[in-house]
Amino acid sequence: MTETHTFLDQLTSLLGEHGLVRKPDAMARYIRDWAGDTLGTPLAVARPANTEEVAEVVKRCYEQGIAMTPQGGHSGLVAGALPDANGQELVISLERLNSVRAIDPVNFTITVDAGCILENVKLAAFDHDCDFPLSLGAQGSCQIGGNIATNAGGLNVLRYGMMRELVLGLEVVLPDGRVWESLNALHKDNRGYDLQQLFLGSEGTLGIVTGAVLKLATRPTQNRTALLGLPSVQAVIDLYGLARRECCDLLTAFELIPRRCIELAIEATSELRDPMEDAYPWYVLMEVAATGPVDLGSMLEALLETGMARELVLDGALASSDTQSAQLWQFRESMLEGQRRRGEHLRTDISVPISAIPDFVARASEVVMAASPACEIIAYGHVGDGNLHFNILPPTTVADSDKKAHLHDLEELLFEVLDDFHGSISAEHGIGRTKQAPYLARLSPIEREMVSGVKALFDPKGLMNPGRILPAGPPQQAKAMINIP
Amino acid sequence: MTETHTFLDQLTSLLGEHGLVRKPDAMARYIRDWAGDTLGTPLAVARPANTEEVAEVVKRCYEQGIAMTPQGGHSGLVAGALPDANGQELVISLERLNSVRAIDPVNFTITVDAGCILENVKLAAFDHDCDFPLSLGAQGSCQIGGNIATNAGGLNVLRYGMMRELVLGLEVVLPDGRVWESLNALHKDNRGYDLQQLFLGSEGTLGIVTGAVLKLATRPTQNRTALLGLPSVQAVIDLYGLARRECCDLLTAFELIPRRCIELAIEATSELRDPMEDAYPWYVLMEVAATGPVDLGSMLEALLETGMARELVLDGALASSDTQSAQLWQFRESMLEGQRRRGEHLRTDISVPISAIPDFVARASEVVMAASPACEIIAYGHVGDGNLHFNILPPTTVADSDKKAHLHDLEELLFEVLDDFHGSISAEHGIGRTKQAPYLARLSPIEREMVSGVKALFDPKGLMNPGRILPAGPPQQAKAMINIP
Repeated sequence: MTETHTFLDQLTSLLGEHGLVRKPDAMARYIRDWAGDTLGTPLAVARPANTEEVAEVVKRCYEQGIAMTPQGGHSGLVAGALPDANGQELVISLERLNSVRAIDPVNFTITVDAGCILENVKLAAFDHDCDFPLSLGAQGSCQIGGNIATNAGGLNVLRYGMMRELVLGLEVVLPDGRVWESLNALHKDNRGYDLQQLFLGSEGTLGIVTGAVLKLATRPTQNRTALLGLPSVQAVIDLYGLARRECCDLLTAFELIPRRCIELAIEATSELRDPMEDAYPWYVLMEVAATGPVDLGSMLEALLETGMARELVLDGALASSDTQSAQLWQFRESMLEGQRRRGEHLRTDISVPISAIPDFVARASEVVMAASPACEIIAYGHVGDGNLHFNILPPTTVADSDKKAHLHDLEELLFEVLDDFHGSISAEHGIGRTKQAPYLARLSPIEREMVSGVKALFDPKGLMNPGRILPAGPPQQAKAMINIP
Repeated sequence: MTETHTFLDQLTSLLGEHGLVRKPDAMARYIRDWAGDTLGTPLAVARPANTEEVAEVVKRCYEQGIAMTPQGGHSGLVAGALPDANGQELVISLERLNSVRAIDPVNFTITVDAGCILENVKLAAFDHDCDFPLSLGAQGSCQIGGNIATNAGGLNVLRYGMMRELVLGLEVVLPDGRVWESLNALHKDNRGYDLQQLFLGSEGTLGIVTGAVLKLATRPTQNRTALLGLPSVQAVIDLYGLARRECCDLLTAFELIPRRCIELAIEATSELRDPMEDAYPWYVLMEVAATGPVDLGSMLEALLETGMARELVLDGALASSDTQSAQLWQFRESMLEGQRRRGEHLRTDISVPISAIPDFVARASEVVMAASPACEIIAYGHVGDGNLHFNILPPTTVADSDKKAHLHDLEELLFEVLDDFHGSISAEHGIGRTKQAPYLARLSPIEREMVSGVKALFDPKGLMNPGRILPAGPPQQAKAMINIP
């Protein structure tokens, strides 16, 4: 205990009074994320002000055997950035590393601290007629470092890719406190193994990203939004292929929305009204965006016409102004709020091949409804990525105390159906703690060896974000995957 | 010797008479690549017919301590896929694994054997109104496995990314002969570490890719090509930003070409004539392509007009038919032939930030010309990727026997300038053997540890494509990068 106190006192000397948070009430905001229901107890919260301070904190932790929890903007959904309840993990918050270091609009790159909030990076890019195209509900609070650690996705992946495709260079503090500086601003670089790929999506288990060079896109000068009513999921999938071709691959979003979500949205936001005269079983919220001289309005109208002629689209609302466009997007946002109001529910972020979506939705619905006839399925998602949020509201008849177990059972059934479709149990949220069991259950022995081997190579003591992705504790000691005969 | 004979006899039993090539004259075609000047002496050439045979060959090699050289379509430029001269490496050619396994145009994916020739994959995609957009000079002979091992780039990277961005799933034979099957066809998958990234660009040093799921694009229904004359490299860079915006990011190519290359092209192909009335110091060969209703012709004309008004463009030739477009592309192809005819020369494939291209070209030219006033610089490349082929023809006065050393000295000078611009010595060709020395010289100690650690994790005996990227011999034994205090 005295040893720990001494360690923390020394951290305070290093970081200053504002640099180390030790009082429980001041630590409260570091132990809650978007999911809202997951808490922890940190040893303390370090708030280093720059890369050197991060490195020094990490070095001391590694020497002393103190576990570390790197933390960004608390918008994770798998408890990846929250400390354990045992009071032994030092939270290392990147929130004070929040400068845009440089922007080069000719090279289409921006160099930022890991603690920069995504929205601020987007605004900085706008100032130079560029865009940083990652787009998430949490963009007002999530940080670039967290986006990198989780390989964030979001709404515009079908056009711009996930975070992995938007990162050119990294600065990383390795688990022993050494800094790997690789802030290249090169669009093409093919020198040996691409080491930065290891850190992208590693959820803070291999090191702490402190800075990054990000790829910018041109800033669209125009966009158009449409909400369409469709008869079936198959029609949605057929329309997707048509839309990519008829809209010159200028799609920035193509969201599947079931009727139930439109209703939830209307419940949640009083000013929303049914978007079309009739109700349809499925909707698509789509957007096209462009720089330069194309007539997006005519493009969408032509798509709608062809879609209706082929009986894929039954009706549609085309926004003809930014206000109308915002109104259509309001459905997407309010439906999330409507879901939230229903209390505890199963959230998933699975993926399957795009072509398998109709059969998967049908089969999964059948299996889930057979097991729990009074539950409510809310399946929406990013069609172009094959990424569905196949969520489940528990039956109102299930007692609050039984809801978690009930939903867990349904999740297991859902994941078994997913296995038949060669799907992924996590298309964007990552593994963290909450998806660890189904993740490990599906890893082949070879994959388990590879994952453990990489972890052991970088973090042999298992101190960096322990218990996320892999179980806590020192990983299988770093050794070759192969026993030399 | 007898042991080796027994081993090879057993391989013949396994693979059949056509499956193992042992006669020197029959092996000749496996020891030459595009560079043409690099030869080797294999122990033998194994031609397995499927993944299981590859796995069995690899397993036996690993048990017996036989070094392996995985080999694709012989289009490498860094001697990465050629055996050593010592007669001890077994070449494992993937040429018989050449089936398209499946195509799913709704999911925009194709599943192929690693030995499929790129052109055939493109043709298979065309049949389904899709495109596999990787585009290389060598596409008629290079194989998908080689494209993956080298993270191939090419002409369309600015629109579609490098091979890394086009691969969704892999099947890999690991160095001990176990098969890692991860042929996911998921556009989004965020389960823990992305292990396939390790194999992409690892140049066959971590395992042999035998199959892959590739991402398809829509097939463009129209394209337009233009060849423009410009006053300076700065004008080329300024035009690039303008072109991306004015052409809706529908650019598929934006190639920098110096006047000298136009002359070389005309020399090499008698039917080519100067493309414009006057000669200009720099040219841009650009192409836009689209599916759907956009007027690419007007788009290019408007760009040309704006470019001329801003004095970025001095003159331009717009192709108005496929034939004219092919004629413009003929300059790009013939200039390579023209270079080849000049005999031995320095080939590089460096990259710098796009914004640094003008200063880099000026500074590098100055340094090279100061050191060798009679040499000839031919710098062309893919502007949108910051990727230049800054090539050098040696002075005609240098004796043939001295040319290699002379060019080597110039390369070292060039790379030193490149270091000042934070550039890469290999933007697309990879490291192989020929770029190993300058690569290793520029690796930081941390990077060397990481690269060696990854190699040791997968291939502790150092038998898989030895001497490429890292020096031959067992890698530093697999152990944690960090010494546990």
